[in-house]
Amino acid sequence: MLHNSTIDKQINHRSIRKFKDETLSKEHLETLYTVFQHTATSMFMQNASILHISDKDKRAKIQKLCNQKYVGAEGDLFVFVVDLYRNQQIRKQLGKDDGRVHTTDIFFQAMEDTLLAFQNVANVVESMDLGYVPLGTINDHPLKMLKVLDLPKLTFPVLGMQVGIPDQKPQLKPRLPLKFTAFENKYNKDFQVKDLKHYDQVVTTYYDLRDANRRIDSFTKQITGKKLDNHETDRDQIPEELHKQGLCLDWK
Amino acid sequence: MLHNSTIDKQINHRSIRKFKDETLSKEHLETLYTVFQHTATSMFMQNASILHISDKDKRAKIQKLCNQKYVGAEGDLFVFVVDLYRNQQIRKQLGKDDGRVHTTDIFFQAMEDTLLAFQNVANVVESMDLGYVPLGTINDHPLKMLKVLDLPKLTFPVLGMQVGIPDQKPQLKPRLPLKFTAFENKYNKDFQVKDLKHYDQVVTTYYDLRDANRRIDSFTKQITGKKLDNHETDRDQIPEELHKQGLCLDWK
Repeated sequence: MLHNSTIDKQINHRSIRKFKDETLSKEHLETLYTVFQHTATSMFMQNASILHISDKDKRAKIQKLCNQKYVGAEGDLFVFVVDLYRNQQIRKQLGKDDGRVHTTDIFFQAMEDTLLAFQNVANVVESMDLGYVPLGTINDHPLKMLKVLDLPKLTFPVLGMQVGIPDQKPQLKPRLPLKFTAFENKYNKDFQVKDLKHYDQVVTTYYDLRDANRRIDSFTKQITGKKLDNHETDRDQIPEELHKQGLCLDWK
Repeated sequence: MLHNSTIDKQINHRSIRKFKDETLSKEHLETLYTVFQHTATSMFMQNASILHISDKDKRAKIQKLCNQKYVGAEGDLFVFVVDLYRNQQIRKQLGKDDGRVHTTDIFFQAMEDTLLAFQNVANVVESMDLGYVPLGTINDHPLKMLKVLDLPKLTFPVLGMQVGIPDQKPQLKPRLPLKFTAFENKYNKDFQVKDLKHYDQVVTTYYDLRDANRRIDSFTKQITGKKLDNHETDRDQIPEELHKQGLCLDWK
């Protein structure tokens, strides 16, 4: 195992959900945006945008939809947006048809641009001794969120990020051993749940600060539990949302 | 603008497409896998896997499908895999139904896990003075690629990465100015293509080493050109591929 400051930050990643009551400086923002900007981009299409939400009223609305008290609270809130609007506008204003912007292929390439930029920003956040939590809840109520963010067609808010000065020190969360996730030449289809016995025990010794001082369920208990059980959720509006946005129109 | 070694590496990112004829050490691999493993993961589902392709025959087959000479050539080849198979197996082997694993919601969360892990690995690659190029071409022929990689259902190879010791020094590729991609509170829907005039000129001064010593088209010329023009491509098999894989079954 090799080490340098980048590696050491990344293998010590913890999501931070409690921040000091300070906001990022102008230099912080400039740095994060510049890093966002220089992320690798598929076919040089640059299909990602970033929204910084500092407006109090907007933050409150987003917090309500995400239903997590740390969203839009202390620190700074960002939304990472898959963005094909800009390129469609370029084509339109220069007299071209929309071409392939409505395909799943191009949407996925834009997802790549946006999520790579997310992690680029995340790593720089941690390199500056700040912390962050990814906000998947930005899609808990997709259609309502689009209205709050007032986004045009051909965009999709894929992930949020709350950033700030950490005000908690979570434990390092134990991850699946590499034999289950990293493969040489051939994916191992012969997965045996009994091989997770030891890992399950390790996970149950971890305390999640989201639910103060309470140990969490084993990994297999989480995977067989409510997070993947069938249930009604507005998150199932994602396909409808994308079609409304003019994205992935080739799905039938 | 702030600076540290992580920031400086990231804002100087160039894709490397020519590597020295050396492969990564065992310690390199261990480091990259460990970083992969510690990436943030949605709902702690850990829905990502990584394949390292060292087998010569497999590399040749992948190179042929990607149709880029540097894929699987000098250096090391990785494939980043969206992986819901493992969690489906956990549920199945413990007597549960598949629950939500076939939904677009869960697939997107797995995409997030996988692409965040990709960029985490990418940043550590560059922190060690190695280079990489993202391989979107891994999906140029989705159905054939699935066979070559011999992946089970509920997986999807989203992005490849060729890694190695750089043997070229590309110019820094000029990116869209931040006023087009970073927004405060409100996305600017009033995009005017004429505002890209200066950026278009900047782009045309850049030389792309893929096409030795030839300047590239302006940004707007690229966006209005063949990459987004309607054309037949196997990449349009992506929705079919995902359905075959049992993914995103709620698209109608």
